[in-house]
Amino acid sequence: MIKAGIVGATGYAGNELVRILMQHPEVEIKSMTAHSYVGKQFDEVYENYREINETVLDEMNMEKLAEECDVIFMALPHGTAANVVTEDILKKTKVIDFGADFRLKDADIYEKWYSVEHNGRELLKTAVYGLCEVNRDIIKGKQLIANPGCYTTCSILSLRPLVAEDLVDLKTIIVDAKSGVSGAGRGLALASMYDECNESVKAYKIASHRHTPEIEEQLGYAAGEQITITFTPHLIPMNRGILATCYATLKKPMTYEEVKAVYEKYYGKEYFIRLTKKGVFPETRWVKGSNFLDIGFSVDERTGRIIVIGAIDNLVKGAAGQAVQNMNILFGLDEKTGLKLVPVFPA
Amino acid sequence: MIKAGIVGATGYAGNELVRILMQHPEVEIKSMTAHSYVGKQFDEVYENYREINETVLDEMNMEKLAEECDVIFMALPHGTAANVVTEDILKKTKVIDFGADFRLKDADIYEKWYSVEHNGRELLKTAVYGLCEVNRDIIKGKQLIANPGCYTTCSILSLRPLVAEDLVDLKTIIVDAKSGVSGAGRGLALASMYDECNESVKAYKIASHRHTPEIEEQLGYAAGEQITITFTPHLIPMNRGILATCYATLKKPMTYEEVKAVYEKYYGKEYFIRLTKKGVFPETRWVKGSNFLDIGFSVDERTGRIIVIGAIDNLVKGAAGQAVQNMNILFGLDEKTGLKLVPVFPA
Amino acid sequence: MIKAGIVGATGYAGNELVRILMQHPEVEIKSMTAHSYVGKQFDEVYENYREINETVLDEMNMEKLAEECDVIFMALPHGTAANVVTEDILKKTKVIDFGADFRLKDADIYEKWYSVEHNGRELLKTAVYGLCEVNRDIIKGKQLIANPGCYTTCSILSLRPLVAEDLVDLKTIIVDAKSGVSGAGRGLALASMYDECNESVKAYKIASHRHTPEIEEQLGYAAGEQITITFTPHLIPMNRGILATCYATLKKPMTYEEVKAVYEKYYGKEYFIRLTKKGVFPETRWVKGSNFLDIGFSVDERTGRIIVIGAIDNLVKGAAGQAVQNMNILFGLDEKTGLKLVPVFPA
Amino acid sequence: MIKAGIVGATGYAGNELVRILMQHPEVEIKSMTAHSYVGKQFDEVYENYREINETVLDEMNMEKLAEECDVIFMALPHGTAANVVTEDILKKTKVIDFGADFRLKDADIYEKWYSVEHNGRELLKTAVYGLCEVNRDIIKGKQLIANPGCYTTCSILSLRPLVAEDLVDLKTIIVDAKSGVSGAGRGLALASMYDECNESVKAYKIASHRHTPEIEEQLGYAAGEQITITFTPHLIPMNRGILATCYATLKKPMTYEEVKAVYEKYYGKEYFIRLTKKGVFPETRWVKGSNFLDIGFSVDERTGRIIVIGAIDNLVKGAAGQAVQNMNILFGLDEKTGLKLVPVFPA
Repeated sequence: MIKAGIVGATGYAGNELVRILMQHPEVEIKSMTAHSYVGKQFDEVYENYREINETVLDEMNMEKLAEECDVIFMALPHGTAANVVTEDILKKTKVIDFGADFRLKDADIYEKWYSVEHNGRELLKTAVYGLCEVNRDIIKGKQLIANPGCYTTCSILSLRPLVAEDLVDLKTIIVDAKSGVSGAGRGLALASMYDECNESVKAYKIASHRHTPEIEEQLGYAAGEQITITFTPHLIPMNRGILATCYATLKKPMTYEEVKAVYEKYYGKEYFIRLTKKGVFPETRWVKGSNFLDIGFSVDERTGRIIVIGAIDNLVKGAAGQAVQNMNILFGLDEKTGLKLVPVFPA
Repeated sequence: MIKAGIVGATGYAGNELVRILMQHPEVEIKSMTAHSYVGKQFDEVYENYREINETVLDEMNMEKLAEECDVIFMALPHGTAANVVTEDILKKTKVIDFGADFRLKDADIYEKWYSVEHNGRELLKTAVYGLCEVNRDIIKGKQLIANPGCYTTCSILSLRPLVAEDLVDLKTIIVDAKSGVSGAGRGLALASMYDECNESVKAYKIASHRHTPEIEEQLGYAAGEQITITFTPHLIPMNRGILATCYATLKKPMTYEEVKAVYEKYYGKEYFIRLTKKGVFPETRWVKGSNFLDIGFSVDERTGRIIVIGAIDNLVKGAAGQAVQNMNILFGLDEKTGLKLVPVFPA
Repeated sequence: MIKAGIVGATGYAGNELVRILMQHPEVEIKSMTAHSYVGKQFDEVYENYREINETVLDEMNMEKLAEECDVIFMALPHGTAANVVTEDILKKTKVIDFGADFRLKDADIYEKWYSVEHNGRELLKTAVYGLCEVNRDIIKGKQLIANPGCYTTCSILSLRPLVAEDLVDLKTIIVDAKSGVSGAGRGLALASMYDECNESVKAYKIASHRHTPEIEEQLGYAAGEQITITFTPHLIPMNRGILATCYATLKKPMTYEEVKAVYEKYYGKEYFIRLTKKGVFPETRWVKGSNFLDIGFSVDERTGRIIVIGAIDNLVKGAAGQAVQNMNILFGLDEKTGLKLVPVFPA
Repeated sequence: MIKAGIVGATGYAGNELVRILMQHPEVEIKSMTAHSYVGKQFDEVYENYREINETVLDEMNMEKLAEECDVIFMALPHGTAANVVTEDILKKTKVIDFGADFRLKDADIYEKWYSVEHNGRELLKTAVYGLCEVNRDIIKGKQLIANPGCYTTCSILSLRPLVAEDLVDLKTIIVDAKSGVSGAGRGLALASMYDECNESVKAYKIASHRHTPEIEEQLGYAAGEQITITFTPHLIPMNRGILATCYATLKKPMTYEEVKAVYEKYYGKEYFIRLTKKGVFPETRWVKGSNFLDIGFSVDERTGRIIVIGAIDNLVKGAAGQAVQNMNILFGLDEKTGLKLVPVFPA
């Protein structure tokens, strides 16, 4: 059994991680920490765990966790992991970080977009960007995984085959993304109050969202050159789910079938990536509660554009599910172990 | 492996049953039928099953199902099972009926509340009311299970200890229940349209809902006498969940602790029934996607009433989950097999 | 033109009051205050007022408001008005208080349920309970109006004819009420976060909600004796609306028509109270955005109970609308002035 | 008083039209028709009108309506008006058509996108496209108004200043639009059922939605040349509202202030178009229930793109409100008459 520690168990992503790990056959949760709830039982914070997870929440103690655990999941926003993860810690345990600290290879870009100092620059070379379907071979055996962001997972994987195969004009890429409210986390904020987001839709952080450089860096690797995109996130009145509507101009006319063949080449054998049939498009409801990414697309012959649509559950494939997928890779398990979650509908 | 057939796989309850059975370690789904979708793949109707369940849907053929399956789940509304389930069928296979046909022992009462003729009266003696926590001992080894209704499961189990222990005035029982929209099924109806139920709440079938006699009959067994209750269902703008707020006047003053001891006696060892702590009350979000029934209560000293609140997921403990729990009992498996589903939150 | 001041303009009720007063032909808003937003424009807090209400928000100054305004609306929770409204203020202006401070005639009961000291006991005799349809004759010409609570308005008016006509056993009254989330106000609270209330239903403050003594006092006046009821509020995932499902046992059997005649007698001429036809029941969607209270009922012959259902928009008839109705009465206007708001559907 | 007839009063747009006209000081509704509800009272179909609009619904009779009414609102989908509106009718009355029949000047394009024959080609020259802020001068005194579509109103007005001033590369225009469910109408459809659209987001009719040629035609007039755009509608789990996120590449770098000046030039004096301040963006909640269009934008210096965001209430500015605005223009009233509706929030 893999001994796992969860730092930040009481955020929405942490909570989802607990749900998945409790149903994972090879994992034993050794410790759960939550700064704001130290000493409380987990089921007092999340009553869905009544009688099934009464773990008392601890303060984060990286040394102790490193001693006790084979893997530490850092289910915290950016700005923590870089401060507490050290080479010493990584000698004793593996770390999967949900935050952004180790996602961007260039710490200067990180500091620009996140407006904080990066205190873990020396670990950036060690860290692997945990986009499983792309990087599984280099994830194996590593110690520090930067678990990708929710918007980014959906956006990068939806566009990557087109970019990698040089089929689209890189300057024309636009991602118009829609996310459920859980993406904003559980912190108190007027903008996250029920009456403030219910029955409304809005764009936010237009041309300035922090997931932008992450998408650009990863698509840039696929392209072999720097990419600049427009990324616009929107808040949707629903609990979970991300839909990314991606636009790009094809370099030359292509039929649906030709594009489909490219996607099949990249994802045809991927369990967690499901390509929709012609004329069928992803909807977030079909992936809810699961680790699937659904991808569909349409070729707009009138404009020469391709419109690719990806859908994930932001808390699963966009956070906890992908983290567990990374763990499975790190520990040599079948990637699907504990992750063959059937999407829940209607939910 | 238990070979299972699912009749009516494309209703919301049937769909949920598929989800649960696919994750059940001892079950193989042999056949799925759906009158309106014969010849279609299941994942074309419910795209959450894309690539993971591409079963072609059949027309219902009870003879064939009885030959092929160890158990047939009839995930259909009332009025079908009584017409097609026969003693011959039951000699070959077990049947778990989601409809109401075999729930009420008195076919005349059935005909009065359901306004249809009962065509299966001879099987009423054979059928067992599948309220697992109450009837598990008589369920074992039987052939025909009447799976309880969603409102009824929640209402009966919430009130039963009080009734069985003669603690409340039976004439004072009121159940004010609230259900998500999936309880209305997937049939096209103006009242189930998004804009018609969103952002609103209503009572319906006031003093006339068909689950009333079912609650009365079962609580009557517990009381040892006939009971007449008031039952008022409400439609809540959410996909899933039932909350039953139950009122009754205590025969004599009791403290919270005294009542709690009674509930502990009945349910203290039940895995799927979770009693909340003092001052904590069930909410449907905490059981969503799971087979749990959460029960909490308050003694209102000012009025001498007890208010008991129960919460379930109507599609799981109120339908498919309880059906699988019944199947586990029928086949001698641990009741929890395939049902240790952690509630999904936020969902 | 009536000069109006609004204290607490940035709560949900205050905001709704602004909407109504802006469309009222006889009112000029002179001043708007909001402690947390002093110096900000109202449309920066509520962007629906962009370009149509750019009033700069003030700090509350009762002396100044009393000088400038013919009426001050105190759109604040309990505990403020009793501290700042004085006889001097009331010599200069009229006050309509949205809070609970002057609703209960017995300050001891107030202190018990609200757990705060009552600092305005001397004004309790001056204050009139502003339940317009009941008290309009004694409201006229007064200076201090205690605007009723949202749950209470709906509950009292729904039950009052039965109680006043001595038709029900007073000991059997139960109100099971359902409210949208705006009832909880705009204050930051985990329980009001989108993901925490969406897709779920719960009861809260069971047998202990502060609107209980208010309902009891007012129904007691109608009955001519003290009444003790059970009141259970529930939170519904919707922005607005209250549905009160009220239960009581009839003293003697009555037909639907007999009861209907009683309701007609009380409310047949009331513009803002609409009685539904037989078999039709109120739903909150039909009153949204309006000052209507819809009432319907069913006689449950099996149990001898009557079930009365009332529906209001909690922010209109349950707060700002009724306040304006009170203002209209106070100033001798037609009660409907500025309040003939057609309910908005779907909304 | 203007005598108005409403054809198709029981659709969501028709219902909203009734709400607005009932509060319009210069209009008397003479007749309401609804094919599916002939003989029923309007308040039986929409109970929000209980006691305030008990009009009996008629069958459509254009001759009779033309005799009785000064204006007929055809609140029906495409394909009806072209069949029943004739030059004779237009000699007697004015017609404002909510459908698409007279929106596109080229009937062949209409037939291609709508897949039906156009039976009213001779009236296409007579009809005026009722986009009030653009065409008010040519609307005056006309007889037949093609009321614009919901998506189109929002998209065209949001982009028009950029196009008219030749500031963007016309080949780069993309509109990613999000609509509430009422946009799909009240017709029974599985896709409009509560559980099917709640808690999910999807794109639909990708690169093939019928509002595309309408946007292209109107923006083409502004540009002075043909335009081809990509338009992607999305379904959002909310009752009302459209948000259009529009992308285009600037022909040369511009500052926020330079672009703002252009928008001010076009819309600075328009009552129903509100420009947001720098850093503030439209959200559908702020226009709900009103005739406003809110527009905001951001210049993405990294990519040279401008992102313009427009928000309307699809049933008001996108349908009934704009229709009344057209009526006001047709009859020489102040355009705002009856339309100074304050947005309702939270709603």
